[in-house]
Amino acid sequence: MMDVAIIGGGPAGLSAALNLKIRNKSFVFLGGSENVTGLMKAPQIDNYLGFKGISGTELVKNFRDHAIEMGVEIKKEKAYNILDMGEYFSINAGNEFYEAQSIIIATGHEKAKYIGGEKEYLGKGVGYCATCDGPLYRNKSIAIISENEEGEEEANFLSEICSEVYYIPTYRTKPNLKDSIKLLNEKVKEIQGDGNKVYSLATDKRELKVDAVFIVRDVIPVNQLIEGLELCDGSIKVDRDMAASIKGVFACGDCAGKPYQIAKAVGEGSVASLSAVRYLENKKG
Amino acid sequence: MMDVAIIGGGPAGLSAALNLKIRNKSFVFLGGSENVTGLMKAPQIDNYLGFKGISGTELVKNFRDHAIEMGVEIKKEKAYNILDMGEYFSINAGNEFYEAQSIIIATGHEKAKYIGGEKEYLGKGVGYCATCDGPLYRNKSIAIISENEEGEEEANFLSEICSEVYYIPTYRTKPNLKDSIKLLNEKVKEIQGDGNKVYSLATDKRELKVDAVFIVRDVIPVNQLIEGLELCDGSIKVDRDMAASIKGVFACGDCAGKPYQIAKAVGEGSVASLSAVRYLENKKG
Repeated sequence: MMDVAIIGGGPAGLSAALNLKIRNKSFVFLGGSENVTGLMKAPQIDNYLGFKGISGTELVKNFRDHAIEMGVEIKKEKAYNILDMGEYFSINAGNEFYEAQSIIIATGHEKAKYIGGEKEYLGKGVGYCATCDGPLYRNKSIAIISENEEGEEEANFLSEICSEVYYIPTYRTKPNLKDSIKLLNEKVKEIQGDGNKVYSLATDKRELKVDAVFIVRDVIPVNQLIEGLELCDGSIKVDRDMAASIKGVFACGDCAGKPYQIAKAVGEGSVASLSAVRYLENKKG
Repeated sequence: MMDVAIIGGGPAGLSAALNLKIRNKSFVFLGGSENVTGLMKAPQIDNYLGFKGISGTELVKNFRDHAIEMGVEIKKEKAYNILDMGEYFSINAGNEFYEAQSIIIATGHEKAKYIGGEKEYLGKGVGYCATCDGPLYRNKSIAIISENEEGEEEANFLSEICSEVYYIPTYRTKPNLKDSIKLLNEKVKEIQGDGNKVYSLATDKRELKVDAVFIVRDVIPVNQLIEGLELCDGSIKVDRDMAASIKGVFACGDCAGKPYQIAKAVGEGSVASLSAVRYLENKKG
């Protein structure tokens, strides 16, 4: 059992991890893919105090190096779902499960809109983690809609167990896919079903008969990540201590609301981690 | 008329200034003495993301250089009092007055306790700005209690107009004072008066007959700086946008509450400045 699980590897998560390390707390840090944070795309950043005219890539490297030099371990896994078990939390990270006494959510802000049918068929053919649910679709036909390169790995994995895999990227780089996978550069319209389960995915060009649709998002919608968390304008509602509405859950950075600023994320990561430390102490005492 | 006045030159104020500069707003930045921030004393700082094992002095230099390179002008003046004029604010900075449409308070946290009699006789012989009120005590006897070297300048100034100047430092370095000033390394007990005005200052060694007592603090108590600001546990009460209880006033960093962390201060400075920008835009219509 860890003291804390940090979900999300951007500036907020890194700042939280750094401070938990200094405070000597045990934690698992599910950073997800290194390339996801939008920050990497910024050619020049001038408004994080201490660095003038640094590129996003350089700044992220700096941040990660700092954390790693301090002994922080950044896992590439991503959290798909968190269950509140009362006295602790159970985190589903695809291939692994983790347990922690408190949670720091630092997943960034959700850019994408829901796809038509996504909410309705979630758990009825729609999923966010192919590694988790893929085996349910052995010898079936599935589609993957992916916002980033992570989806390629999932597609390659599913191509070994499913009869048909369609891959629809919403990003620009050329995907690296196994030959059996059908790459479709089409616009997704809607996920369709009979009310109980998915039967097709409509694009602007065709209707694909599929049994499941996996959506690989940069940021998993918060209300899919953990149930019952109070939101405010689509962001996680937090107080000045970065405590969210569920006891033991803290949030920081873009997922906790505007403005979407590095300095805010780093500052909030620090506050969230210290609040988590206090929470753990109060719980013990 | 400036868009914004920033009060306090630590990490929060610098971060606010940096962002206002980038947003092309006009502002006056009253940084006060360079040496005041407690940060300067830290031998090693590891928890501001991006800098590992940096000294406080180095980090502050880095922060200031960044702001200055971006074109930020840091004034050494200190704000003593802010008046809410309805549509704008008037700031008394000792020798100068400034006007601004909004205020960002970043004065750090108050470490000192009030001296006995300080509150009671404020404006009745007790003051925080010798430059402002000194001339009222021509040919009178006054005492200066000072938390830092700034007080020496005030004492030297007053020694030219007052008949007697006592200087009581609460810091350790040897003060650089004119010969006529009486340096007392004593412990202040209480400011005494007849209910209407100060007549003496009691130390652990003696009772000084004085007409005024000036207290030079690292941080001017918030409720002396601006009237009517709502506090919470001794800090300025702010919402998630760093807006304080008076319209157009924002606060950030240690003066806005715990934890006292550089990252929090920098993040909040960024948020406060963007909130001030939005406030100005809404005001304009």
